Order: sequence, then C-alpha cells, then structure tokens
Amino acid sequence: MPSPGQAPAPFRGSRRDRAARASPAPQRGPAPSHARDGQLKGPWQPCPGGAAACPLPPCLGAPGASPPRSGRSRGAAGDRGSFCGGSPSAGRGQRISWISDIIVVVSPENIETMKTIIEKYGHKRVTVVEGGITRHRSIFNGLKVFAENEFSSHLLQKPEVVIIHDAVRPFVEEDIVSKVVMAAKEHGAAGAIRPLVSTVIASAADGCLDHSLERARYRASEMPQAFLFDIIYEAYQQCTDYDLDYGTECLHLALKYCKTNAKLVEGTADLWKVTYKRDLYAAESVIKDNLSQQVCVITNGKETLAQVGFLLPESLKSQIKVEAITVPLSKNDSRLQNIISGQCYNFVCVNDKRCAIQEAQELADMLEKSNTPLLCPVVLISVHLDISENNSFSIGMEDLTTIKKFARETKKKNILVYGLLIQYKDPLLLQETVNSAAALIMALIKDRNPELIGQLLVA
Amino acid sequence: MPSPGQAPAPFRGSRRDRAARASPAPQRGPAPSHARDGQLKGPWQPCPGGAAACPLPPCLGAPGASPPRSGRSRGAAGDRGSFCGGSPSAGRGQRISWISDIIVVVSPENIETMKTIIEKYGHKRVTVVEGGITRHRSIFNGLKVFAENEFSSHLLQKPEVVIIHDAVRPFVEEDIVSKVVMAAKEHGAAGAIRPLVSTVIASAADGCLDHSLERARYRASEMPQAFLFDIIYEAYQQCTDYDLDYGTECLHLALKYCKTNAKLVEGTADLWKVTYKRDLYAAESVIKDNLSQQVCVITNGKETLAQVGFLLPESLKSQIKVEAITVPLSKNDSRLQNIISGQCYNFVCVNDKRCAIQEAQELADMLEKSNTPLLCPVVLISVHLDISENNSFSIGMEDLTTIKKFARETKKKNILVYGLLIQYKDPLLLQETVNSAAALIMALIKDRNPELIGQLLVA
Repeated sequence: MPSPGQAPAPFRGSRRDRAARASPAPQRGPAPSHARDGQLKGPWQPCPGGAAACPLPPCLGAPGASPPRSGRSRGAAGDRGSFCGGSPSAGRGQRISWISDIIVVVSPENIETMKTIIEKYGHKRVTVVEGGITRHRSIFNGLKVFAENEFSSHLLQKPEVVIIHDAVRPFVEEDIVSKVVMAAKEHGAAGAIRPLVSTVIASAADGCLDHSLERARYRASEMPQAFLFDIIYEAYQQCTDYDLDYGTECLHLALKYCKTNAKLVEGTADLWKVTYKRDLYAAESVIKDNLSQQVCVITNGKETLAQVGFLLPESLKSQIKVEAITVPLSKNDSRLQNIISGQCYNFVCVNDKRCAIQEAQELADMLEKSNTPLLCPVVLISVHLDISENNSFSIGMEDLTTIKKFARETKKKNILVYGLLIQYKDPLLLQETVNSAAALIMALIKDRNPELIGQLLVA
Repeated sequence: MPSPGQAPAPFRGSRRDRAARASPAPQRGPAPSHARDGQLKGPWQPCPGGAAACPLPPCLGAPGASPPRSGRSRGAAGDRGSFCGGSPSAGRGQRISWISDIIVVVSPENIETMKTIIEKYGHKRVTVVEGGITRHRSIFNGLKVFAENEFSSHLLQKPEVVIIHDAVRPFVEEDIVSKVVMAAKEHGAAGAIRPLVSTVIASAADGCLDHSLERARYRASEMPQAFLFDIIYEAYQQCTDYDLDYGTECLHLALKYCKTNAKLVEGTADLWKVTYKRDLYAAESVIKDNLSQQVCVITNGKETLAQVGFLLPESLKSQIKVEAITVPLSKNDSRLQNIISGQCYNFVCVNDKRCAIQEAQELADMLEKSNTPLLCPVVLISVHLDISENNSFSIGMEDLTTIKKFARETKKKNILVYGLLIQYKDPLLLQETVNSAAALIMALIKDRNPELIGQLLVA
C-alpha cells in the first residue's frame, strides 16, 4: 500500500498494484495532521503540471504489514491509475514504519513514471508490479510477488498479514490501518466500513424499483482491508474468471473461498474516495487546510520590531498555531532549525528595512536545505515595517522588482514568497494595522496562490 | 423544493420542509452553468458569517411541479437544517418557472431566519412550513399544505405532481428535475439514481461480514424524486409510526402502500449530497469555478489604451470567456447593461490614470443597481496603465489609501475590488507584461478572496 503521502495520486484509467512487507513491531509515526513525508493529512502532493488538481482516480493498493505486537509479516497491494503526485523523501522515512514492504501495482504504460516518482521522493520498501485489466487481477498480481518467483526479480518474504488499500483514499489514518490489521490477525480478514449515505435500491428489468434496502442494516465497504496472507492468496488462487473480471470485493472472496467472515471495522469520513472533479477540489482544500495549521514568526530582536514582533503573533493566534521566535537569522540556531524540520510550512519574516529581502533569502536557503518544500509549497512572507516619518511615503518600482525576481527564483524551489508592508506611523492605529496584516498573512497562507508571489501587499 | 439556488444551504441539525406549486407548461430557464438567480451551478450563496463555508447538512425538500406539457400541478418539499445562504432576487424570477409552488419545511427555531432569507432575496411561490422530527414527518407536513387546511393560512391548490428534493444537493440540474417529473406522471413515482461508489455489505450480529451485494445489481437512490400527489399523499397517510420514524425512502412508501413501482432515472454526479466539511470545500470551489467562466473587459476607447485593450482580452481568452467592450462608462450603454444583466460576475476596467478609481466607481454603481452582486460576489479589477516615461516611478501611499477605502465600501455591496498596475514602458515587453496581468486577473477572479480587496498588484 502507498501510505497516501507516499503514494501520490494516480490518473484515472490505468492500473497498478502495490505490495509491502512489514517489520514486526508497530512503531507509530508522527501525528498525521502535522506529520512530515507528504503523509496522510498534511502534505500537498504536487503533481506534474497540476498540483493537487490532477484527476485522481479510484485505485487500490495492498501494502504488506506486520500486525502490531506480532511476528514478522508483509503484504501486497493493488491500485489502478497512474501516479501523478510525489511521495515523501527517503530521508524522512515512510510514514507507517511497521509496514515492511509496499507493492505498487501499476499499468504497464505507467511503470516508468512510477519508478521515477519513487526515486525522486526516495521511497524505500517499494516494489513496482505490472497490473492486470481489472481490480482483482491487479491485486492478485501484487500478491504473487510474495509467492511466485517469476513476478519479481527477488521473491519477497511472505507476510503474515497483507493490507489492501486504494490510492484514491489518500487521507487514511494510521489508526484505522492498525485496527484493520489487528482484526485481520484475529479473524483472518477485516475491512473498513462506513454508514451508507444514500438508500440502496434494486431495480427490476423494466428500470423500475424492485425493492429498497433498509439503510440501517447495510454498510458501505471501504478500504483499507487486511487479510492473513494465506487466506487471501488462497482465495485468489481459487477465483473463477468471472470473479476476477467482474468482482469488486476482496472480503467476498475470503468468505466464498476460505469461509472467512471478515471483521468489519468502523472507519472515519477520511476514507472517502477521490473520484470526481469536486473531490479534487476538496482534496486540495483539505491539504491546504492542513498546511495552514502553524506559522513561525521570526523577528531579529531589534527594538523597533519588538512591538510588532509581539502584536503580530498575538493577532495570528486566534486562527493558527504560532511559533514566535526572536533570533537573528542564523543557520546555527537550533530553535529555528527544529521548527523547520518539525512540519511548519509557513514563515513570516519581520524586518524594519523597506523592501529588504536579505533575511527572507537566508530563510529560503535554510528551507531549501531542509527538504521541507520538496513535498508541499512553503509560504514565506517577508514583512517590512515602514517606520519612516515621511508622510509622502511611496513604494519604488525598484523595490517591487527586487522582491518579484526573488520570488520567481524561490518558486522553483517550491517556496512561495510574498511581501507585506506594515505602516508604523500612528502608534494608536498600530493594533488595527497589525490585525489587518494578520488577516492578509492568513489569506496568503490559506490560498498558497502561486500567481500572487512577489507581490507587495499593504496592511 | 428549493431549487438549490433559491434554497440556500441549511445548517445541520435542524429541520424544515418546502413545498411548491407549479404552473402548467414547462419553460426552461437559462443554461444552468451560466444561469442567473443563484441557481444550480452558478451562484455563490453567501451565508451569514461564513460565505459558502458554513456547515451544509443533509436535508430534503419537495417542490410542487407541473410535469412539462401537462395540466396544472404543484408540490411539496421538505428539508432539514437552517438556511445559511441567500436565494435569488425576486426581480430575476425563480429558476424553474414551471414549478408553481415551493414548500420549504423548516425546524421551528429556524422559521424566522428562513422567512427573512425569502424576503431578502425576493423569493416568490414559497410557503414555509414547520418540520417534524424525522425526514418522513417533515415531508408529510409539507404535503399537508395542499390537502389540510390547518397547515397553512391558505390552502394551496393540490398539484398533479409533487417533487421532493434535498436542499443539500444544491447543484441539481433542471434537466433531471424535468425527467423525474415526466416519469412520475407516467409511472406514478420516479426518482434519480446513481451507481454505487462502494460495494454494499450486510453485517452479522457479531460485527462480521454476513454477505456482500453484487454492486452492479444495486443503485444509490438519490434526489430529486417526483410523485403523483395522490399517490405519495395516500402513502404518507397510511404510514405506520415506524415508517415515519425510521424510514428514509419515499419510493419505498409508494411501493408499499400504493403498489407503485417508481421509475428510476439515471442522475448525474451533480446530485451529490453536501454532507462533510470536505463537501463544503468542494461546493465552494464548484461555485467559484462557475462564477469564473466569463469576464468583461472595459476600455474607454482612448488611443493609449487601445493596445492593452486588445492584448489583455486576447491573453485572457485561453482561460475564460471574454466580453471585451470599448465604451466610455455610461449607464445608458445597452451593451454593458446587457452583460451586467447576463450573468457576468467579473469585470476588468482598464484606464490610463494612475490609481484613478472613478471608472471603477461608476461600474460599481451600475452593478449595485443591477442586483447582480446580491447573490454572489462580483469581482471588479481596476487596471491602471502606467505610461509615464519616468523610470523612478513609485506608488504613493495616498493612491493606495484611496483604492483601499473604495474597496472597503464596495465590499459591503458584495463587490470585491482589486487594483492592478501595468507598466507600459518597453513596447517590446508589453506582451509579456499583459500575460502577467492576465494571470493575476485570473487568480483574483478564481479566488475571490475578500481579504485581498483594495490591494494594488503589479504586473
């Protein structure tokens, strides 16, 4: 399985599968909503030519996982579609550490693209397998990597438990994966379920209602699902061609061929399938929302900045978690380094030089070296405090050109730079001006609009 | 039923119903995606304190409708939740003209809010009815308006066909409403269906899989649904308390109590229920997308503007439908008036005065009088062409303050004003600068960010 961060969004229409092998003990990763690695909730997976706005199709993946607190196991996974996004860098490790192998099942035409993505983002534990023409055939191909020599250059060690997941459900939480794996270990098979959103009905041959199902008695079967490897593999081996070509439900195969009644585990709303264009809009907004949870405000300790350095974080705090630090920008400052390496995607750099970008440049360098912007765009707002007494203050074209040029350069590194001018004329109006600046900062952070980089806004 | 434009989004947790009465002949409204009146696809329903970002709950509504090409009929509708959005102004008429009456069923605590909204947006044909504690009880209350005196100050004329719809499906197209009505007239009952997104399973008492349904044989029952009034009203009259308290499916009632097998009509993906927070994100994006389909570029015909007045629309055309007109702004210009009254929510006003806003002000006045911004925010971008030879050009604070003040005033009228400066120095670079301006214009139009109003961007 691709943990959704790792497994970027596939294009509709092609197929692939994934499988994974898990290390024995469950080691929980960082909290999902602020986690690194482009994982479940946080990261914005840029896709070639379209950011999070690429078509994301339904797909399925089956990662091998070792059930927590148990012996070694692995898995296999299948998904359909071709990846269009990135995945976390190797340096950061992959999100669910107790998954030992990840099999990604991909349509033949997308295998090379997939391999490029895996290399770019430094994924480990991933084996790419050619998919079949249906969901079940793709999953079966993924499972064979653990059992049949000809399907892989090296036979992966057979897992105790295998997880199957759809890559079109990128917001899955580690918690539900863990629950499903534990249940599979006990019951042989398990799958996430959700309440039905609509009543389900059966139609007669004439296109009229035959009967409707009582909604409370039924559930939607979602992913992830997990199985003892021997059960699901045997089920696939016994499958008829009809099953492989028209079936949609792995739990059904385990029941039909191995008499295994899967344990059903209540899933969360996060398991939704990114299927339609509106889902892409929603996914983009959810990711942007998750990236907008924390901002780091940096001031250099100069007296003139002290008041704004205090008021601005206070004004932001009602909307966002704020880390306010007063340091001369330095690559050796451990506090700033910790923030950069700790999932912060938003930085505000306050200085008292009109349109000077030196500090923003230093910060951009630090960010680039940290790999933070590799997965998701980082917002860097350079706040300039205008403390001149001159009432006929004006913004020169030269200053504007400087910040624009800088912003164009840093955009290549996935850092979005915006300028913001705060006029510090009347101390009585300062609070109001700072509030206005905070509103602009939040708007820039939430939108992450690449077209507006290099603009100088005025609070 | 609220046609979703008319019926703004309700808050989760409360209940209401709506009913409507239809005029006999079907008169199709304008195409939905560019249509007026806050209707299905186009309008952005602002909600008190939160624009389209308010929680939108599932709800149901039953508009009375006359089946196209048939005799007079009406309907009743129920939905749950409290409205948080607006609805089209009376002056523009309501979207589906052949619906003669609209019953909106509302929880007791939200009736006054609902009435305020109906008045504000000038809705006609709407009767507000107090809802019950379940979906079926609310719908039944809505239907009673056509049959029982005590439920309305004046008994509405009994319709031939009644439509039932959920207000949480705001993007329904008139086409599917029409199809469902026609089918109901022939079969007695009809409802929209969609393919299942997930496999449906039944669980046993122990929380394990009992059996899974073959996905291809079942469908999700969606809204709208339509019925011959006598059938659905009789079905509700015969309902048991168990039906009223636990049932979810109107088609089931028609089958159970009136032996009417509803005709099932394939619906479109637009019928999705706005249920979760992600759906609000999606709904907002869909609405913004629909508002960003057309822009009107206005130049005053002066020679200095001619080149930009030509290049800018050309550059925009790859992304948006452009109406470029060269007129001195005048309230008597019929072409501009036609554009304003023809569903355009985006205006670009090009002038050669640095930071002069007079023309933008005139346009804002015209827009305000047209009622266009009542439903959805209108974007007005004041483009200033800087043709000075002076290389040390700068933007004065006074100019910035002027546009900010103007933007704050027009925002109260739901018009979002942004400034954009184009430097016309080097004719060789003009095309590049215009392209950059076009990109900024598109970004402003697509985002409609109220926090960025009054800012002066530089292309």
